[in-house]
Amino acid sequence: MTTGKIRLVPLGGLGEVGKNMMVVEYGDDIIIIDVGVMFPDEEMFGVDLVIPDASYLLDKKDRIRGILITHGHEDHVGGLPYILPMLDFPPMYATLLTHGLINVKLKEHRLLDKTSVTVIAPGDQVELGSCFAEFFRVNHSIPDAVGVVIHTPIGAVVHTGDYKFDYTPVDGKPADLGVLGKIGNEGVLVMMGDSTRVESPGYTPSERVINDSLDKIFANAPGRILLATFASLISRVQQVVDTAIRYERFIALVGRSMQNNVQMAIELGYLTMPKGMLIRVEDINKFHPDQVVIICTGSQGEPTSALTRIANQDHRLVSIQPGDTVILSATPVPGNEKSVHRTINRLFRQGAEVFYQGISNVHVSGHGAQEELKLMLSLIRPKFFMPVHGEYRQLVLHAKLGFSMGIPEKNIVVAEDGDVVELTTDRIGLVGHIASGNVFVDGLSVGDVGQIVLRDRKVLSQDGILMAVLTIDKETGQPVAGPDIVSRGFVYMRDAEELLEAARMRVLASFEHMQPRLSEHSGSDWSFVKDKIKHTLSEFLYEQTRRRPMIIPVVMEV
Amino acid sequence: MTTGKIRLVPLGGLGEVGKNMMVVEYGDDIIIIDVGVMFPDEEMFGVDLVIPDASYLLDKKDRIRGILITHGHEDHVGGLPYILPMLDFPPMYATLLTHGLINVKLKEHRLLDKTSVTVIAPGDQVELGSCFAEFFRVNHSIPDAVGVVIHTPIGAVVHTGDYKFDYTPVDGKPADLGVLGKIGNEGVLVMMGDSTRVESPGYTPSERVINDSLDKIFANAPGRILLATFASLISRVQQVVDTAIRYERFIALVGRSMQNNVQMAIELGYLTMPKGMLIRVEDINKFHPDQVVIICTGSQGEPTSALTRIANQDHRLVSIQPGDTVILSATPVPGNEKSVHRTINRLFRQGAEVFYQGISNVHVSGHGAQEELKLMLSLIRPKFFMPVHGEYRQLVLHAKLGFSMGIPEKNIVVAEDGDVVELTTDRIGLVGHIASGNVFVDGLSVGDVGQIVLRDRKVLSQDGILMAVLTIDKETGQPVAGPDIVSRGFVYMRDAEELLEAARMRVLASFEHMQPRLSEHSGSDWSFVKDKIKHTLSEFLYEQTRRRPMIIPVVMEV
Repeated sequence: MTTGKIRLVPLGGLGEVGKNMMVVEYGDDIIIIDVGVMFPDEEMFGVDLVIPDASYLLDKKDRIRGILITHGHEDHVGGLPYILPMLDFPPMYATLLTHGLINVKLKEHRLLDKTSVTVIAPGDQVELGSCFAEFFRVNHSIPDAVGVVIHTPIGAVVHTGDYKFDYTPVDGKPADLGVLGKIGNEGVLVMMGDSTRVESPGYTPSERVINDSLDKIFANAPGRILLATFASLISRVQQVVDTAIRYERFIALVGRSMQNNVQMAIELGYLTMPKGMLIRVEDINKFHPDQVVIICTGSQGEPTSALTRIANQDHRLVSIQPGDTVILSATPVPGNEKSVHRTINRLFRQGAEVFYQGISNVHVSGHGAQEELKLMLSLIRPKFFMPVHGEYRQLVLHAKLGFSMGIPEKNIVVAEDGDVVELTTDRIGLVGHIASGNVFVDGLSVGDVGQIVLRDRKVLSQDGILMAVLTIDKETGQPVAGPDIVSRGFVYMRDAEELLEAARMRVLASFEHMQPRLSEHSGSDWSFVKDKIKHTLSEFLYEQTRRRPMIIPVVMEV
Repeated sequence: MTTGKIRLVPLGGLGEVGKNMMVVEYGDDIIIIDVGVMFPDEEMFGVDLVIPDASYLLDKKDRIRGILITHGHEDHVGGLPYILPMLDFPPMYATLLTHGLINVKLKEHRLLDKTSVTVIAPGDQVELGSCFAEFFRVNHSIPDAVGVVIHTPIGAVVHTGDYKFDYTPVDGKPADLGVLGKIGNEGVLVMMGDSTRVESPGYTPSERVINDSLDKIFANAPGRILLATFASLISRVQQVVDTAIRYERFIALVGRSMQNNVQMAIELGYLTMPKGMLIRVEDINKFHPDQVVIICTGSQGEPTSALTRIANQDHRLVSIQPGDTVILSATPVPGNEKSVHRTINRLFRQGAEVFYQGISNVHVSGHGAQEELKLMLSLIRPKFFMPVHGEYRQLVLHAKLGFSMGIPEKNIVVAEDGDVVELTTDRIGLVGHIASGNVFVDGLSVGDVGQIVLRDRKVLSQDGILMAVLTIDKETGQPVAGPDIVSRGFVYMRDAEELLEAARMRVLASFEHMQPRLSEHSGSDWSFVKDKIKHTLSEFLYEQTRRRPMIIPVVMEV
């Protein structure tokens, strides 16, 4: 690419919430911001994880100067174990806590010795080819979150990362408005800004408001308190610790990721807790119920998480007992509402008192609302603006918000994954589109589950499958065994003997009609016979049941 | 059952939102309130509808005095076509509009001539064995909604139906607080009250607030306006009609249920519209865009609905054009959030301006919030209280709300579907539990899709299926053809030839090991061989892919 131009190529996170990955190109230099995952939605049957399609970068590996990580959430770092190897492990830059979280992940995938992560702090600058990057502190629902300015020869590119403005954050480190003002004063060519909460008017409340709610709940809880939140929400854990100190309660941690993250946050100094306050979950029954707080994972109703297991009476060590108070300190991520509600219902059913967002102020978002988005735009005052991190409607609404603040329409780009956005000092616009989209991780495989497999899984999930197996004598073209009919997920076979027997008869009858033509096909792959069986069964079964199971005819030759 | 006792047996709607059906028993008399359906959740693969399990009533048909229908929503009437025949068509009682909606439904199922519905109005009384029922008007998101008092010899049983208090409803018919006060003054033994919105503080706003939002949107819409709402929300359609009159726009209806309901509402006098205002959707292009409003179904993102098809550029007659304004005048029902958001994103992508709840006041709920629930309890002042119509947590919160208003804890029952609640004039309590739960409608069948079929569909949806078909000579016990391996939803077969060939080899190899024992099994059903094949493949495939497709071995004998 010629100099004098910047390219922004979102590989993930624009047009969806998840798998954030942004490519910034200037001349020969490529800088990547974040490499996240997305959790599969209900249409992605059986898929474990979704990662960005990084194929655009495969023939440009030698141009990658670095990967900048804004913070340690899964939708910003979860793709690293899969994508780092594809890109020959470019150098990475991350803050201390983010580095710690990445390391845990890379260790699990046995990639730790292959990677190099440089720990940076807000204010640090790093050289990246002809550009250099500078980091600034933002507030988010995980400590040590940063935004990035990439200084290119033709101007500054700002990526806000995920942010909100909290003047009184729990860790005492508010976003530095002075630095943001300075960045803006020096002139910013383009800003990419977090759009997640653009639909909410006003300000996201400070994390401090949760202290009052927790205090009230702790003051009235007769027995144990279980609090579920995101394992990465260290500031929430700190708030629970602080409240527990006031009410003289010990803390037990349940859920592997909660234990790991708290351990690391303590070691790195992001979480302070009096010595002896942490007890083993195996020991909770040695304490009086009103001396115990259990902090656990599972605030999203994830099937294998601690709180879900507890709610299902399926946890090895913890079960709900009378007098328990449960706090879900999180909001359901869109798509998780039903499973979160199911968990809450089950906890109530077992007699717990349950507090959750909607009836109690026990959570605040990590993303800024409209007034905060305006504040960021007012501080940075970019010439060009590209909304990121949001579904399409959120990107559009964020664009409109920028427009309402005086950014000309032609200076705003609403782009989606795979769009190639090019800008000079004068103009910005879409110049192309590259292969992008969802790459599915399923078991050991990355990318081999594609649309055909998913479509089959969907069909199978709707009306099941029915197989008709027939053995034919290749000399005579006569059936010598079968058809045997086997079905799964269609009807309960023991209840449907008549139906299946009738189906068998239909196949045999259709076969008789075919006899005259069979000889022509003997020795072939019998596809004519298979088509006929399939058609006959499909019609018969739809007529009988109004369902359309997948029908698989198998013809064996002897 | 002896007299002096009332039994309340919820067959649906308690512990869930959907398929409401309540059985009230006194002596020999059985009265049923509502017979609804529920839409399947994402775990009920391939199921079309869910209806209550009415088996409790099958040996008591001659005791059923009547079915009282509170209003015409699907979760209150949708089960009728399936359950009426099971119960030999008991007499039904419903208001005029509800009657109209039921008729449409029964006609579709060709059951119209078998049923008798008596049209009632608020204030009417009907005799039901030793009891009589009286109806009172409530406000809800459909006209002509009522609650019911069943006067039994030992006291009054009130069922609120779905309700809110709207002092300025669009149809000009507020709930009659005088009547409710009178019912309370005369003494109520037990009240069953709608719990849907117990988590929301304050009052549900009046439908009138939507007028202002619509007015603002209509005033600024440069082109066509598309408004999607529930087909049964006649008052919303009336509001759109009224606003359209002010802005001199014609109205086209899209979606069969919208067309049917509007037609019927006009005929029955529930909707007023100037002559000539309604245009055919085929004719919309004959009008200037700013003369057109399209009212359609699809506010829930239902796959085959009008708005979803339009958003997917898949509608025969309507497609989004520049300048279009789309209003989603509804809130996503829990579980529908993702599909609603998908629809909104697609509409934005095609250049429409989209207004939806969350960024604009274009919908109010049909259910009362906390203060309204308190108002109802204050008017009715029941001795006993049983929350209905809600998930378990909502029933519990409603119970707590009743307790906070002075109803003693022992007088409140939180029951779920299938619980048998018995009360005398002195006490209320659970006395048993009967078979209840979900009956699945799938295609033509009612009830034959059970847990085994659903479990199979779930497994199939996760990792697909793999079949291994082998033909064996029954004399020699030797394989003469196969194994043929066929898979669907597991791997894309063309990409996985090596894996499947290796699987084939494994089966053959395992077969050789079995040779010595085969002779013993010859002539048997080959289950030993099948188990061996299944085990071999299962292990091999998990080791290779970390996936667990369903494995079906088929052995043919020749």
